[in-house]
Amino acid sequence: MSGNSFGHLFRISTFGESHGPGVGTVIDGCPAGLLIDPELIQQELDRRRPGQTAHASPRQETDRLQILSGVFENKTTGSPIALFIANGDARPEDYAHLKDNWRPGHADMTYSLKYGHRDHRGGGRSSARETAARVMAGALAKQLLAHAGIEISAYVSSIGPHSMPTADDFYTREEVDASTVRCPHQATSEKMIHFLDELRTQGDTCGGIITCISNGVPAGLGNPVFHKLQADLAHAMLGINAAKGFESGDGFAAAGMLGSLFNDAIEATVDESGHPKFHTQTNHSGGIQGGISNGSPVVFRVAFRPVSTIMQDQQSVDSRGNAVNVEGKGRHDACVVPRAVPIVEAMCALVLADHLLLNRSARI
Amino acid sequence: MSGNSFGHLFRISTFGESHGPGVGTVIDGCPAGLLIDPELIQQELDRRRPGQTAHASPRQETDRLQILSGVFENKTTGSPIALFIANGDARPEDYAHLKDNWRPGHADMTYSLKYGHRDHRGGGRSSARETAARVMAGALAKQLLAHAGIEISAYVSSIGPHSMPTADDFYTREEVDASTVRCPHQATSEKMIHFLDELRTQGDTCGGIITCISNGVPAGLGNPVFHKLQADLAHAMLGINAAKGFESGDGFAAAGMLGSLFNDAIEATVDESGHPKFHTQTNHSGGIQGGISNGSPVVFRVAFRPVSTIMQDQQSVDSRGNAVNVEGKGRHDACVVPRAVPIVEAMCALVLADHLLLNRSARI
Amino acid sequence: MSGNSFGHLFRISTFGESHGPGVGTVIDGCPAGLLIDPELIQQELDRRRPGQTAHASPRQETDRLQILSGVFENKTTGSPIALFIANGDARPEDYAHLKDNWRPGHADMTYSLKYGHRDHRGGGRSSARETAARVMAGALAKQLLAHAGIEISAYVSSIGPHSMPTADDFYTREEVDASTVRCPHQATSEKMIHFLDELRTQGDTCGGIITCISNGVPAGLGNPVFHKLQADLAHAMLGINAAKGFESGDGFAAAGMLGSLFNDAIEATVDESGHPKFHTQTNHSGGIQGGISNGSPVVFRVAFRPVSTIMQDQQSVDSRGNAVNVEGKGRHDACVVPRAVPIVEAMCALVLADHLLLNRSARI
Amino acid sequence: MSGNSFGHLFRISTFGESHGPGVGTVIDGCPAGLLIDPELIQQELDRRRPGQTAHASPRQETDRLQILSGVFENKTTGSPIALFIANGDARPEDYAHLKDNWRPGHADMTYSLKYGHRDHRGGGRSSARETAARVMAGALAKQLLAHAGIEISAYVSSIGPHSMPTADDFYTREEVDASTVRCPHQATSEKMIHFLDELRTQGDTCGGIITCISNGVPAGLGNPVFHKLQADLAHAMLGINAAKGFESGDGFAAAGMLGSLFNDAIEATVDESGHPKFHTQTNHSGGIQGGISNGSPVVFRVAFRPVSTIMQDQQSVDSRGNAVNVEGKGRHDACVVPRAVPIVEAMCALVLADHLLLNRSARI
Repeated sequence: MSGNSFGHLFRISTFGESHGPGVGTVIDGCPAGLLIDPELIQQELDRRRPGQTAHASPRQETDRLQILSGVFENKTTGSPIALFIANGDARPEDYAHLKDNWRPGHADMTYSLKYGHRDHRGGGRSSARETAARVMAGALAKQLLAHAGIEISAYVSSIGPHSMPTADDFYTREEVDASTVRCPHQATSEKMIHFLDELRTQGDTCGGIITCISNGVPAGLGNPVFHKLQADLAHAMLGINAAKGFESGDGFAAAGMLGSLFNDAIEATVDESGHPKFHTQTNHSGGIQGGISNGSPVVFRVAFRPVSTIMQDQQSVDSRGNAVNVEGKGRHDACVVPRAVPIVEAMCALVLADHLLLNRSARI
Repeated sequence: MSGNSFGHLFRISTFGESHGPGVGTVIDGCPAGLLIDPELIQQELDRRRPGQTAHASPRQETDRLQILSGVFENKTTGSPIALFIANGDARPEDYAHLKDNWRPGHADMTYSLKYGHRDHRGGGRSSARETAARVMAGALAKQLLAHAGIEISAYVSSIGPHSMPTADDFYTREEVDASTVRCPHQATSEKMIHFLDELRTQGDTCGGIITCISNGVPAGLGNPVFHKLQADLAHAMLGINAAKGFESGDGFAAAGMLGSLFNDAIEATVDESGHPKFHTQTNHSGGIQGGISNGSPVVFRVAFRPVSTIMQDQQSVDSRGNAVNVEGKGRHDACVVPRAVPIVEAMCALVLADHLLLNRSARI
Repeated sequence: MSGNSFGHLFRISTFGESHGPGVGTVIDGCPAGLLIDPELIQQELDRRRPGQTAHASPRQETDRLQILSGVFENKTTGSPIALFIANGDARPEDYAHLKDNWRPGHADMTYSLKYGHRDHRGGGRSSARETAARVMAGALAKQLLAHAGIEISAYVSSIGPHSMPTADDFYTREEVDASTVRCPHQATSEKMIHFLDELRTQGDTCGGIITCISNGVPAGLGNPVFHKLQADLAHAMLGINAAKGFESGDGFAAAGMLGSLFNDAIEATVDESGHPKFHTQTNHSGGIQGGISNGSPVVFRVAFRPVSTIMQDQQSVDSRGNAVNVEGKGRHDACVVPRAVPIVEAMCALVLADHLLLNRSARI
Repeated sequence: MSGNSFGHLFRISTFGESHGPGVGTVIDGCPAGLLIDPELIQQELDRRRPGQTAHASPRQETDRLQILSGVFENKTTGSPIALFIANGDARPEDYAHLKDNWRPGHADMTYSLKYGHRDHRGGGRSSARETAARVMAGALAKQLLAHAGIEISAYVSSIGPHSMPTADDFYTREEVDASTVRCPHQATSEKMIHFLDELRTQGDTCGGIITCISNGVPAGLGNPVFHKLQADLAHAMLGINAAKGFESGDGFAAAGMLGSLFNDAIEATVDESGHPKFHTQTNHSGGIQGGISNGSPVVFRVAFRPVSTIMQDQQSVDSRGNAVNVEGKGRHDACVVPRAVPIVEAMCALVLADHLLLNRSARI
């Protein structure tokens, strides 16, 4: 087991810390012959980058994609594809005061207790910067999925107390990114923006919820028992920093529903060639039944806790157990959720790409 | 990747269908020298067995544990431990009417579309009976965990519209099993029982929520990036039939909280030998920070959708696309959640046992 | 990592000891829809069984195959296929004298030092009986390979000082099994038989070499770097008890050859549809180049050391370090190599089946 | 499964082609707290580098190690360690004539047939340059092993027709590297050098054999069934370019030996504290019994075929099936075996490091 790898046939290994030379990812198992557009990867990196909106941390990361291997004449060769972005604008001295102090809500304490020491500069491996490696890999996975007719779209459906009134519709990238908080419902988006402005003046932070919908997922992806499609998606999502919850289809609400309401009735239409085509009338199950996609949109939501670094005094300890006060410094988001949208999409893409390949062995 | 295996160092592979010879599990990686009490495994099987309460399906399964390998003179040898229970009381003829018809909410459609044919008898591999294999393996994992001072307790905190008023306390097995719906809060338990009685007369079903708490988990379990402890727990939980949601610590509620409230302040006490011992004052994070356990109780919740088989007419199709009506027959639970308690505990035990072993390589 | 599992997409997990209830295997990842003939599995078990020839141990094992899961109406369902044979004719008392004594050449010492205790009865997990689980799984893999036009044949090319004069020809099962030592060259076979008769009177044992040839392997199986086809075959073969060497194509002899002689010249013919079909004029490389099959027969050899149990006094120790004399008792082969033929074929089949499925993801 | 990853707990993923930006490796699972000396990694890279001896290809690679992540204040942090060397001195135009032509003995044909196209520049992923990534990773593994008292030494025991007369002794790095062909037996070394000089004038190439010995390996490494220590070593070695054979201990010679000669007698001495210490009188088994190390030196040999690129005309085809003549150009070794010494050591180190960590979970 390698804690920094993800996937089985479409498998990535990531590396890099916030204040080292850079972060990267090695993608092993991408089929040969896929035409790669590096610009699409760069776009996803740009979407993730801080400093894109007024609500995000102002650190300037240029994040220029380097493709180190695995692509020849713009096509994948079947060899591992290594993607890398150099770190720039690092200010390790911003973190000197944290060398021995442990910040509440952060990984400082647990890394120290597990490993005996830690790279404290910018959170080291626990930095949000690590997610750039996922976004690069996910952007490549999306190109494989696009080739198979699958499209993924995530958006912010809730920030703090403000939630979108409407249910699980699919929105285009343009509709989502038109909002600086990536909430495609305009009235809610405005409330969220106003809420975040207030939060920032208080030096506080909040969490939120992202909804993710995948269209065009063919029936048959996922495995019946431990690697149910929703299980692998949950694994992917709870592996994102600050994620605290996952639900598939109606999720927690389903716990309060009756079976007669929840069950999605099945119906069939006949295509031109006379073959039946099956679909469900509703989609309470979120496009997955028995762990396997049923052809409907795959729908899930991810809950994120508030950002840990707040601009307020907090009670904590240092590594010797002495009580200390910790106050946020440096460059931090008031709310991570809008920036997490491309990360959620990326992790979703990695799961779907993996299961797309795994499903090639389902039948003789 | 093997869809029927789970774990890395403490790894299980399960097999078996509802109406074949039986179900079993092979545990590979249990350390040698562990004293095994088969009676504790049998007890967990009995807890999972249907027909234990008025609210569960009346099928009689005796489920006598057979240990086929890996234990010598009551101790594990380091070799794979195969556990098996034979199927009895099978009535495949109960399912003949389902050979070609697909039941809404079930895996009938997706198995058929993925694999081209399916074992329709009792749901085959998608049967709840498959979970007996997990429970056996989990019961063995619990013995490894007990040896390390870790104890797991799950209970039903919500059924349909009825939820426990109190938060995430630890309850003993006796307190939990004193309620036929495994809800340790007596007033809520009574409402749940009454609710289920009514549901049954209507031929309907419902879902619910299970809370799971692990005490004694040492700091340091879990990995920083993809294999965060909560990610592996989410993977485990969403791999259980009918699970639709997972949350760690405050979970979805955390999405609406402020950072100044959510962050768990850290403090330290000094033990007799003068070493600091760290803990958090609150446990909003559910015992996990940065993907790694922090020494506090590990707390999570799992949401289950309603049971799919209802005793009402439902619109569906057969495998050729013809519209059919499907009505539940046979022996089925009105609510699966109380029986899922030992399954949740088992899957939690498998994750913790695996990470306990993985953590042995964290430091030089 | 699970030490008792093998393969990636076509993956098996085995269990069982010599003197427990039985041995079994769980096959996870066999594609659905494969028509299974249990009789072909039974035949392979019979080929492996001791007591088949005068040169093998007289223990009577009936080894009746039980299919516990994963097959419905004679076809694989995509669920795990569990195969099991019960142990019979066990005489644990034959091994009581070995409880504390360690036999030279056996796993007694290393199991004890690694695990702290061991199941001494018949060697426990180190018994040759463990290989029955591989043979069952391999027999199923062969049926998947046959569906793809791949045929595997192994035979004994060397026993003690006697080696077949001819090179790497393909022999049918009938030609191989016509010899009680499974050497298809009659004159050599007779010398081997005579040699083994003499050995037995001296209470001694010997080793030998098995050649294995796979016809019909399509070009493209294997991976360029760590999972070269020959690497996975070597892994499979050195995982068989008593195997001490592996060579692919010309193997060790290639170390003494010049490049101008070793290189296999490539040529092409044109098929009816006008497409080129490539092949090599010679096969020094054993059908693998750059880690990937080239369409020629896949050829390798496996060397086995002598059987460890000899009917002579040997100097050894007990678990407390006291010097003891150990003399072979019970039922043992003078030469394991003829019985290892179906095991070599089985492990080869597992590797090829796995790579056949893996190769489905090589291209977009 | 990822074809470019190796190991389980100490796991590496490699990337990079001969003529891209560079080659690298990501090491996931190295325990935290290990003091790293980058200079020792650089030394191993230098040992592998071509142009070190008159017998190797004159390409100038500077191969300056860059550590991209995972090391903080000279100590491993538990995060992935990415190592990278940039490619320099690339002359892709040297390979333009190979774009469509397939060279005998090379991976040209099989890559093309598997993946549909290939990076022909310098062999792309099949280039010997890929092994630099292994050597870097192995050099780090060696530092973990040194911390555990394990030392690995490989040397050339055979080139073409010339073999060392003496058996499996351990030689120091100085003794090995004193010979330009890395054969520590001076008279044989001189014959080898003379032989290679002659070969070069003929434009021909040859193969050879490397012996590898590991001292200080504790008893207990390896697994009883599929992941026997020798199986994982064989997997590692046959995954090296041009390797065609592997043997453990007496290897192929053991096939011709009698059990009474082969078995290693066990004896015990008592240490100061009164505990028995076990060892074998001889080491025919190569330090491994039942798949598990027994405390004796771990000894194996690897056979390499001749280098494929010869400076002679060879008959071949292009990708459309037309007959062509291929003649070697560019910079190539006449014999790869001396340069393969650090690669064999590196792969051995990776296997031992992995099993050292895996063995931490052998007992309760």
